[in-house]
Amino acid sequence: MNQKEESDIIIKNGVILTINDYDEIIYDGAIVVKKDKIIDLGKYSDIKNRYKPKKEINAKGCVVMPGLVNTHTHLAMSIFKGLADDLPLDKWLSEHIFPAEEKFVDEEFCHWGTKLALAEMILSGTTTFCDMYFFEKETGRVAEEVGVRGVIGEGIVSKFGNENDIFENKLKLTKELLSEFENSSLVSIAIEPHSCYTCGKEILVKSKEFAKKNNLLYIIHLAETKKEFDDIKNEFGFSPVEYLDKIGVLNEKTLAAHCVWLSDKDIKILKERKVNISHCPESNMKLASGISPIAKLLKNSINVSLGTDGSASNNNLNMFSEMNCAAKLAKVSTLDSTVLSAKEIVRMATIEGAKVLGMENEIGSLEIGKKSDIIILDFNQPHLVPVYDYYSHLVYSVCGSDVKSSIINGKIIMEKRKILTFDVKETMRKANAIAKKVKTI
Amino acid sequence: MNQKEESDIIIKNGVILTINDYDEIIYDGAIVVKKDKIIDLGKYSDIKNRYKPKKEINAKGCVVMPGLVNTHTHLAMSIFKGLADDLPLDKWLSEHIFPAEEKFVDEEFCHWGTKLALAEMILSGTTTFCDMYFFEKETGRVAEEVGVRGVIGEGIVSKFGNENDIFENKLKLTKELLSEFENSSLVSIAIEPHSCYTCGKEILVKSKEFAKKNNLLYIIHLAETKKEFDDIKNEFGFSPVEYLDKIGVLNEKTLAAHCVWLSDKDIKILKERKVNISHCPESNMKLASGISPIAKLLKNSINVSLGTDGSASNNNLNMFSEMNCAAKLAKVSTLDSTVLSAKEIVRMATIEGAKVLGMENEIGSLEIGKKSDIIILDFNQPHLVPVYDYYSHLVYSVCGSDVKSSIINGKIIMEKRKILTFDVKETMRKANAIAKKVKTI
Repeated sequence: MNQKEESDIIIKNGVILTINDYDEIIYDGAIVVKKDKIIDLGKYSDIKNRYKPKKEINAKGCVVMPGLVNTHTHLAMSIFKGLADDLPLDKWLSEHIFPAEEKFVDEEFCHWGTKLALAEMILSGTTTFCDMYFFEKETGRVAEEVGVRGVIGEGIVSKFGNENDIFENKLKLTKELLSEFENSSLVSIAIEPHSCYTCGKEILVKSKEFAKKNNLLYIIHLAETKKEFDDIKNEFGFSPVEYLDKIGVLNEKTLAAHCVWLSDKDIKILKERKVNISHCPESNMKLASGISPIAKLLKNSINVSLGTDGSASNNNLNMFSEMNCAAKLAKVSTLDSTVLSAKEIVRMATIEGAKVLGMENEIGSLEIGKKSDIIILDFNQPHLVPVYDYYSHLVYSVCGSDVKSSIINGKIIMEKRKILTFDVKETMRKANAIAKKVKTI
Repeated sequence: MNQKEESDIIIKNGVILTINDYDEIIYDGAIVVKKDKIIDLGKYSDIKNRYKPKKEINAKGCVVMPGLVNTHTHLAMSIFKGLADDLPLDKWLSEHIFPAEEKFVDEEFCHWGTKLALAEMILSGTTTFCDMYFFEKETGRVAEEVGVRGVIGEGIVSKFGNENDIFENKLKLTKELLSEFENSSLVSIAIEPHSCYTCGKEILVKSKEFAKKNNLLYIIHLAETKKEFDDIKNEFGFSPVEYLDKIGVLNEKTLAAHCVWLSDKDIKILKERKVNISHCPESNMKLASGISPIAKLLKNSINVSLGTDGSASNNNLNMFSEMNCAAKLAKVSTLDSTVLSAKEIVRMATIEGAKVLGMENEIGSLEIGKKSDIIILDFNQPHLVPVYDYYSHLVYSVCGSDVKSSIINGKIIMEKRKILTFDVKETMRKANAIAKKVKTI
């Protein structure tokens, strides 16, 4: 008689979209989780006699896939969502968001804002985020408490004060983050100068030096609006991409968010420097920033992932909605319905997201040995029946709320739409209380 | 002591978005329903002692608003959703949809396809639809059984056979619809020639004559693709809009779907003829048909409503997703984030939808004397907390699945996400069984 191997969780009877190199789909599949890892996956009939799991999850009628990777967001801004809409980026930032941030953003704000954001993210299938904001120690602590994987970094905005003091302070905070989360299994650290229009050259360069020394991701907003493009061109004589290239901060550890206004020369530079991109179509649409030439970027083999941006500009953190818009916007803007297939979009939201964060060996697909970041979607619903193509449904028909359960790093974070790791009602109460004060300005 | 008036339903404690002429919002509001009508609404504290309702619905933490009006769809095509994606419209139609329709579309297909579609619609907040397809008697019967309000009409496609025979048959079917649904409180009839590229001139004109004689809406696809625009121009020397105007079929009882490819002259004609429009941004995006100049149309005071199009091209019937895309696409395509405010979009999905269907005195807003078509949305969720602006959340943050309950024509159709009027599981089983056959082609 065979000895059965102890395991923690088995997910059985689901349709498993592995998102591996062969886009393998396993019907009547099972995934075995032990500690933080996937230790086996395959047909349930082949697997079931080999393991003795502590917990069984029946995924009959469900799709099982890697958790989504949201590569650009500002979590705590969730408390500002809907505060100011239907405005252009510069006005929205300078007249509404910056003043509100000045007045209200503190540790408590970031604690509850991040928690609120993570609740929304978990409930819509995201298991890894990449954040840029303030009081990021709080962001990291909340991520660990809640159990979500994330890259965090202090947003460096140096143009509104003494550049040196600001940078020294941000560097100190970044070093504290590195020390506090050194052994974290969920949180990693990046250095994040906000943009070339809010940071001086010295800060941009010094940040890169620090990133290189510590092998960190360098995350920056880039070429988001026509105004940014024109302003930088006027000031320095170069496009934003050319400018960042000239000062030597673009390489394969640079993650650039937005990348809307790009010349062909810019695209060539991004390709040569192997810059990674976070495409944020919904934010770009809502703020009327413009349309990123994604089809062109992909043709140039540039890594493109998806980000929701902050909830104050989008106004949601729902990656399924982002996938839907990314596909449709690319098609209509090129008048070519064949660009960005559903399968490509699903990869952008999973394995390509993992790649741009340098985590492709750990997450982004369901494979033996990878971390168990897994979501389960209920496909037994009128808007998802019938199925001819699972990828098509994920991009064009699924809602975030179809995600039923979520496992991150081997831990069940949500089951049957109930978040298990923290008090969501308390979070909403606290966020509402802070918003009440914000409303008075 | 006051005598309390008998009523059927009271919805209490909600935030009521009336969508009346003053965009009035009633906090801690209540709506009183008797038979098919709203007989009172106002502050709950003012109303509660005046009525003795059979049923109370507590809408605490919820938004109460008019049900959404989807002005362009092909319901039964839900069974084809995801069958063929990432293709241009003409190829998608001629190589995939038309052959599949030829082979599989019959009364049974339309019965279960319509039921499947209505389940999705109810679950995402639509209470009135406007359909164009085949076997529409089945569509009407299902709408009555399920309890959803709808405009139905036989799609007339005359270019692939003997024009006269086809038209006579369609006219006969339309007369049967008129007779069967003469006294229906939910279903009304339109005449619906598919388009100027699938119907000959005689059919287009004769259909209009019939519409005029019977005071019916005349519903047609118009200027959807560049190919249609170019083909009609080549054949007749006019743009599609000019052509339809020349043959005299455009007036205030014409509802034109899509209207993507419009010259300034076309817009002038649409305005002068008071043609009503169903804007279908998601379908236009996915099929790469193009971007309708909605901001321009609205500036010209043309009535613009929203439609999802059929589930085979979109691929969903979720009006909240349509609202989101409509707003964002208009902004990014004009590079002006101030066009199409959230409030305008909500009106397009409610009262403007009612207007283009000629039903603005009956539905589209919550007012005393109107039909009680009401939806209740659960706003006590992380992605909808906090609220600074209800309209903003409806357009940018709400998911279809936030709709908790739906009342149509005074009848509770869905309560706490459970559809009460038919067997949704049976519907999914039947749709899956039909799809199994479709898959084999």
